[in-house]
Formats: sequence, C-alpha cells, structure tokens
Amino acid sequence: MIRIVLVRTSHPGNIGAAARAMKTMGLTRLYLVAPDKFPDPVADARATGALDVLAAATVCETLEEALGGTVHAAALSARRRELPHAVRDARQAAAELVAHGRNGEVALVFGTEMAGLSNAEAGLCREFVTIPANPDYSSLNLGSAVQVMAYEVRMAVLDSIAAPRPAPEPVREPARFEDIENLFRHLETTMTETGFLDPAQPKRLMPRLRRLFARAGLEKEEVNILRGFLTSVNSVRK
Amino acid sequence: MIRIVLVRTSHPGNIGAAARAMKTMGLTRLYLVAPDKFPDPVADARATGALDVLAAATVCETLEEALGGTVHAAALSARRRELPHAVRDARQAAAELVAHGRNGEVALVFGTEMAGLSNAEAGLCREFVTIPANPDYSSLNLGSAVQVMAYEVRMAVLDSIAAPRPAPEPVREPARFEDIENLFRHLETTMTETGFLDPAQPKRLMPRLRRLFARAGLEKEEVNILRGFLTSVNSVRK
Repeated sequence: MIRIVLVRTSHPGNIGAAARAMKTMGLTRLYLVAPDKFPDPVADARATGALDVLAAATVCETLEEALGGTVHAAALSARRRELPHAVRDARQAAAELVAHGRNGEVALVFGTEMAGLSNAEAGLCREFVTIPANPDYSSLNLGSAVQVMAYEVRMAVLDSIAAPRPAPEPVREPARFEDIENLFRHLETTMTETGFLDPAQPKRLMPRLRRLFARAGLEKEEVNILRGFLTSVNSVRK
Repeated sequence: MIRIVLVRTSHPGNIGAAARAMKTMGLTRLYLVAPDKFPDPVADARATGALDVLAAATVCETLEEALGGTVHAAALSARRRELPHAVRDARQAAAELVAHGRNGEVALVFGTEMAGLSNAEAGLCREFVTIPANPDYSSLNLGSAVQVMAYEVRMAVLDSIAAPRPAPEPVREPARFEDIENLFRHLETTMTETGFLDPAQPKRLMPRLRRLFARAGLEKEEVNILRGFLTSVNSVRK
C-alpha cells in the first residue's frame, strides 16, 4: 500500500487535483499534513470523480504522524539538498516504493508548493526523488507532480506483476504468402496495362512496392480490398 | 521537434496547465485547434511561468491544418476504437515520437476533455496512445495527461542521448502529412471512377486503407509511385 502525503498544501485546488491524479492510477490513501484549507469546495471541484479519495483522507498535524507505521518514505524534491540522502529519479523511486511495499506500507511525500519540506521533515524520509525536468523551468504544479509519480508507481506495479502491456494490435487474419504473391502479380499486370510500368524498363518499381507492403504486414482482407480495386481498374480498361 | 496539439479544448485553464506541463519537460510548440476561449486570463493564470509557450501558440481551425508538415502523429485515446490503428502505451509511444522526430516534426494530439477526437480526426493520426490508467477511473485531467506524456517524451529523449538507439529504419525522406492526405484523396477519386467505391455506400474502405498505410509509414517516394500509378489509371479511363 502506498500513501501519498501532502505537506502544508496552500491551495485546496491542488489537493483535489492530487486526489484525482491518484485515483486515475489506482492509489487511494491520501494523507494531508496541516493543510491550509480542508475540506474545501474548490478541492471537491478539482477532484471530480475522486471525491471518495478526499472523503477518506487522513488529516495529520505533523509529517511524523503521517509517516507512522510506514516501512519506507521517499520525498519529492526539486532541489539538491546539502545533506543528501539517496537521490533517485521518479522511475527508480517508483520501482523501490513498489518493492518496499511488499514489506509494509510506504509513503511518497510532497512538500508545499513554494518551499518544499523543512530540513527536519526531509530528515524523516529515507530518500529523495526528483522528476527529471527542464533545468530552466522545473516548476511542476503539485497536482502534476503527483500525477507523474502516481503514473510511475502504476507502471512499476504493472511491471512487477508482468502485466501484459496493451497488445500492439488486435489479431486479424494475416495474408498468406500466396495471397501476397498473387497481389504483386496482379499489381504488376495492371500497372503494365495502364502504361505506368514499362516491362522493358521496370526500374525498381516492384521492389519498392514489395518493401512498402512488407513493412505494413498485410492482412487477408486488405489483400482482398487491393485486388478488388485492381480488378475494377482491369474492367474499366476493357 | 514535437508539437503538442490540443483539439477543441473547452476550458482555458486546461490550455494554461498544458503549457506549463510542456515547459517543465522542455517542450515549447503548442498548437490549438478551434479552442473555445483563447487567449484567456484563466489560461495565463494556470500557465504561470510558461506564458511564453502560450504567446507562441499556433491557433488553427482544423486538425488537418495543425498537422501540416509533420511526419508522424500520435493521438491520445482513452477508449479502444473499432478500427484500431496501432495502439501504444505512453512509454512506447514516447520512444517512437522521439525516433521519428529525427526525420522531421512530429505531433502528439489530445482531443476534447469529454469526447476526445472525432473518427475523422482520429483517422488523420498514425497511431493511438493510451496511458495505462485505473480501469475503474481512467479520467485524467487534460493538463495531467499532457504532463504524463511530456514527461515520457523527456525521459525518452534523455534515454536516447544516454544510449543512442539505432534509427528504426534506414533514413529515407518520410512523406509529409499533406502528401499522404493528397494520396488518400486521389485514391478515393480513382476508386470511385473505376466503380470500386460507391460513395453512397463507402463501407469502411477508406478507413481500412488508412490503417494499412499508417502501419507502413509512407515515404515520399512511395507516395509518388502510388500517385503515378493512380494517374495512369485516370488517363486510361478517359
């Protein structure tokens, strides 16, 4: 189980956005440390379909309280710290959270919009996480930062259970070798008929077309469509 | 270069959030297709430090216009389509965008907040992208979806710099968007002329052919060959 912990968030809209971002990635456990305004209608509005996550949120006074019972805590940090703990990028950190999550509850901590975490708070976390952002403008909105991290956590979970990624394409009946060769013969004949292909000087026309259709990987029905078109060209000719 | 294309966005706040998300990941080229309200102070407020991205945004009337000059376009899609082009997850799609980006400008397309893209618009894109979300609540905010994709693009760029991958195919000049659309128009006219396509009952002929050629990824010279053949068919007819 992974807790998302938001520390001293000033804008309730960001809390709502974080709840929505969490739920889209299957996370539900939200902890709020000393939020400026909560509950708040602005938070509800931004949460849209994730009101249940807001309703179940745990409000704490200190980060220490919010981390109670966890076996691992990582804190998002935009800047390098003077006394660096381990620093991971988002992808590495997500994999570690998921791995530690097998041993108990883990936490991913987000500081305030402007100032991040205090040094004392940072000291409570086991490692820091950076989202590899544009060095000239690295200021992700809090909701967006939660979205990216929640997404990486979900990807790490899917990887860990070796969830098959979406099949590249639905399987349709592939064309057989003979179908394709017949198509090429039909194409060649028709191109000769229309005068586009000069058999005395074929250049590299057929090899080029073979290469194109080889890349596509033809399906049986596609061969039928193309041959149907060629037949219509043949009959016009007569 | 990667264009982020937002189609018929209803809430200006989402446009601002998208601009900010882009800039945090080093993307700057924003295209807006028929936005409900733009420019708008709400967009500016949400963009915070990314006002330059908003100011440089290109507003278009149609998706076709926004894709002009691109060599590859992928569209974010929450739902499976009936006649699917290739479907990639966010990570795979980002790697492909970066690879194709070596050959020219590429586009990542986001539909409206509620309805996504029309089928005709979807047909203009070469592949679909899904963010692997919670099946019970997959509704990412538009700005969050842009953030996740922009993040994956940045990670793919960083990966490609760290370990330059072999280009997917030997580099030949890719067909531009306009070339391909002109090919489809030519194909449709010719098929109608020869009687193969009945405009009153087109069935799913053109979508099937779009899907086939989208898989192949057409080169400029291949488009020229196919159009040369169609022209020869047209002249026989007369």
